[in-house]
Amino acid sequence: MNKSIIGFLLFRVLQFEGFFLLLPCIVALIYKDPTGLSFLITGVAAIIIGSIGSMFTPKSKVFYAREGFVTVALSWILLSLVGAVPFVLSGEIPSYIDAVFEIASGFTTTGASILTDVEALSMSAQFFRCFSNWIGGMGVLVFIMAVVPLSGSYNLHLMRAESTGAEVGKLVPRIKDTAKILYSIYLGITVALVISYLLAGMRLYDALIISFSTMGTGGFANLNASVGGYSYTVQTIATVFMFLCGINFTAYFYLLKRKPKDFFKNEEIRYYFFITLISACLITYQLKDAYPTIREAFHHSLFQVVSIMTTTGFATADFDKWPMFSKGILLFLMVVGGCAGSTAGGIKVSRLMLSIRSLRKEVGQMIHPRSVRKVRVNDHAVGDDVVRSVGAFITAYVALIIISTLIVCIDGFDFTSSFASVMATVNNVGPGFGMVGPTGNYSQFSALSKAVLSFDMLAGRLEIFPMLVLFNIHTWKKN
Amino acid sequence: MNKSIIGFLLFRVLQFEGFFLLLPCIVALIYKDPTGLSFLITGVAAIIIGSIGSMFTPKSKVFYAREGFVTVALSWILLSLVGAVPFVLSGEIPSYIDAVFEIASGFTTTGASILTDVEALSMSAQFFRCFSNWIGGMGVLVFIMAVVPLSGSYNLHLMRAESTGAEVGKLVPRIKDTAKILYSIYLGITVALVISYLLAGMRLYDALIISFSTMGTGGFANLNASVGGYSYTVQTIATVFMFLCGINFTAYFYLLKRKPKDFFKNEEIRYYFFITLISACLITYQLKDAYPTIREAFHHSLFQVVSIMTTTGFATADFDKWPMFSKGILLFLMVVGGCAGSTAGGIKVSRLMLSIRSLRKEVGQMIHPRSVRKVRVNDHAVGDDVVRSVGAFITAYVALIIISTLIVCIDGFDFTSSFASVMATVNNVGPGFGMVGPTGNYSQFSALSKAVLSFDMLAGRLEIFPMLVLFNIHTWKKN
Repeated sequence: MNKSIIGFLLFRVLQFEGFFLLLPCIVALIYKDPTGLSFLITGVAAIIIGSIGSMFTPKSKVFYAREGFVTVALSWILLSLVGAVPFVLSGEIPSYIDAVFEIASGFTTTGASILTDVEALSMSAQFFRCFSNWIGGMGVLVFIMAVVPLSGSYNLHLMRAESTGAEVGKLVPRIKDTAKILYSIYLGITVALVISYLLAGMRLYDALIISFSTMGTGGFANLNASVGGYSYTVQTIATVFMFLCGINFTAYFYLLKRKPKDFFKNEEIRYYFFITLISACLITYQLKDAYPTIREAFHHSLFQVVSIMTTTGFATADFDKWPMFSKGILLFLMVVGGCAGSTAGGIKVSRLMLSIRSLRKEVGQMIHPRSVRKVRVNDHAVGDDVVRSVGAFITAYVALIIISTLIVCIDGFDFTSSFASVMATVNNVGPGFGMVGPTGNYSQFSALSKAVLSFDMLAGRLEIFPMLVLFNIHTWKKN
Repeated sequence: MNKSIIGFLLFRVLQFEGFFLLLPCIVALIYKDPTGLSFLITGVAAIIIGSIGSMFTPKSKVFYAREGFVTVALSWILLSLVGAVPFVLSGEIPSYIDAVFEIASGFTTTGASILTDVEALSMSAQFFRCFSNWIGGMGVLVFIMAVVPLSGSYNLHLMRAESTGAEVGKLVPRIKDTAKILYSIYLGITVALVISYLLAGMRLYDALIISFSTMGTGGFANLNASVGGYSYTVQTIATVFMFLCGINFTAYFYLLKRKPKDFFKNEEIRYYFFITLISACLITYQLKDAYPTIREAFHHSLFQVVSIMTTTGFATADFDKWPMFSKGILLFLMVVGGCAGSTAGGIKVSRLMLSIRSLRKEVGQMIHPRSVRKVRVNDHAVGDDVVRSVGAFITAYVALIIISTLIVCIDGFDFTSSFASVMATVNNVGPGFGMVGPTGNYSQFSALSKAVLSFDMLAGRLEIFPMLVLFNIHTWKKN
């Protein structure tokens, strides 16, 4: 284990978080918001410590997959621990564990909140919460890679560990350039979204911060009624952009490269589209009598389906009051999540496809034992290692859910709330059912449960393996 | 697909079920119970049709794994469809789907019931319900193999398809003899149990039928209070024997062969023992204030832990009212189930072990990519095919739970009840939580839900693959 390089990168992350923390200070200056001071103090402190620490260049440049996993895991824990500080300093969230939960929820694009009244929060705090959704969506280390000219072999390993999905597609030979391309596309769509929101009549501030949390499929909003507090047009724009952000961003690269065939032939995108459409239609059918027109029922159904499947967590209606079958569909969508390489959480559509296809292959081999079969996606045979790693991921995912639910159960709340809180955090959705439904929040849980759920958000965002490597004894043993 | 041999075997199964249906007639004769007539009619009809049908020897003896899966799947569906008839004939369960649910629950050793008052049932019906637990536990086709001198290659494939666990251990070179040995051990322990119950003061009839459902880890009882209606001594005996029946029966063979080392070194048995002990202690700790003495708390905790983990489903207390953490542990135990090759349901301890170890192997390979690792159990390397098949099983298991829960949700009951009903049937437990808790039953569900849950019981008992092969289009295509 090359600890010096991990330390170096962690100081870099701290330095960058310091710069991020200065952004709400600008908001504070414009709106004369005194809580900006706590962001300024934390930001400046982070920049100073981070800059001093990253002045010492690492002794060795050896960097393998395990260093990548450990760096990413520790970076995200650090981001949350430091990002919580200004909320405690300003007194807006007095408890440190609550503040950690809140900002871990931000960076991991979960959108779960311990706040009972979001509207009471200062404007700079609102801004930073939503900005954490944006930067967490595409990845903090990927951002650093895109901005700072780092050289060495760690780019690939860091990108692999921080990106979502079973495989990372290199767009161009150099990973650094891939990071730049991805962030440019991300920024481009964000600008388009801000303009769309402005055209729909939103204030610049609202348009900006809701764009952040839409793009990161995070789900933080500045109104207690979530996006339900904005106009129908805004909700429709949100639906479209949430859906777009649930798609693999490398697919947009091929679209820009004028290879639309690659985009529309992509099986994951097709599955994603059909799952969304079928779910929305089924829920519309169940809700047709609950709304004045079928169009309105479809509007809310589609919004909620896209919001949950992309694991954003915005709400325009209290879906916890919807019929059980509709809630069941939403729970299923939480598990599926968006496409690999998107800003969405969940196990990802591609892993669902791979699991089903490898099950089909196994059953096929039972029927015809001598046949030779391969799992195929997009007309390419998928390697056994990828299939095995998907299997291991599902095991880890189920184990994480079971262990977390058991611990949260100690609090003694009903099963639906306990289970839903874990599902909504592991899958980075935010709101769940019961106590943590769209009108509820996570404030009532014990500190232990909040710590577990914060860990679940981080593990879910990083797709568990970085955490497993970090806490594995073999990682730290000398070999 | 060799349809003629499948047909031949199905008629054999029908013939045997006819004989089974004559057993409650003896009870009816002794206790002068008029409902015995409906069992007599169904039994005689089944014997006649079965005997005529199995007179035509199959044209071809070709028998592969797929024929094994299809035969087993269809046999168990047939057993349920025919076994339901006497209940409808006698009018004790007027609805046919209810009767199918009840007897599928019997054969699959689930113990879930649609009856609101079990005690109102006639003695012959009680007897047949519990007997179905016993015969289903070790397997109907395995029983036929042990009794009728069949020859040919199908023994192995039938045994593999009907037995539980990822691998079937051949005890002796001939499968037929393995079946005989297993059933002899099973019968031996049953006799010991009946004697134990009699010594504890039970009536012969009660001792017999409760032995049936204890041995099969089925959980049907003739009292509304389940085993809670019998003495503490009876409950303790039940605890011991349920635990014993959750162990791989091939392990007893090695014990009889005076190889106790093989028994105590068996990793699955060790895990099974420790999971039981730790769970019982945790629940005792939570219940210590709910009972007068800690000993009583431990008695009920251990009973319930063993009953749920072996997926029997007996109850001595309304565990649905226990604290949420204790209920969470019980839900986890439902999923785990007993050991492979036992009469218990669930995914089995060995599959849990294999999943965790293959996850550990994958993470190990991430840390040291060039190391060569193998999943090992009992000091033997496990083949990749077994690991892959466990992965495929878990996928199918999760998919079955998700799809079933979604369909059951259409009924509109609360999430806990909907989810628990699926978990309690797929894992062949019987009672769950909420509406289907130990004091509740399955009567309120719609016919659709009852059909789905009946399918879940069968799929759970046969460990899903036979059903997947049966309903796979490639099974029926000419190649």
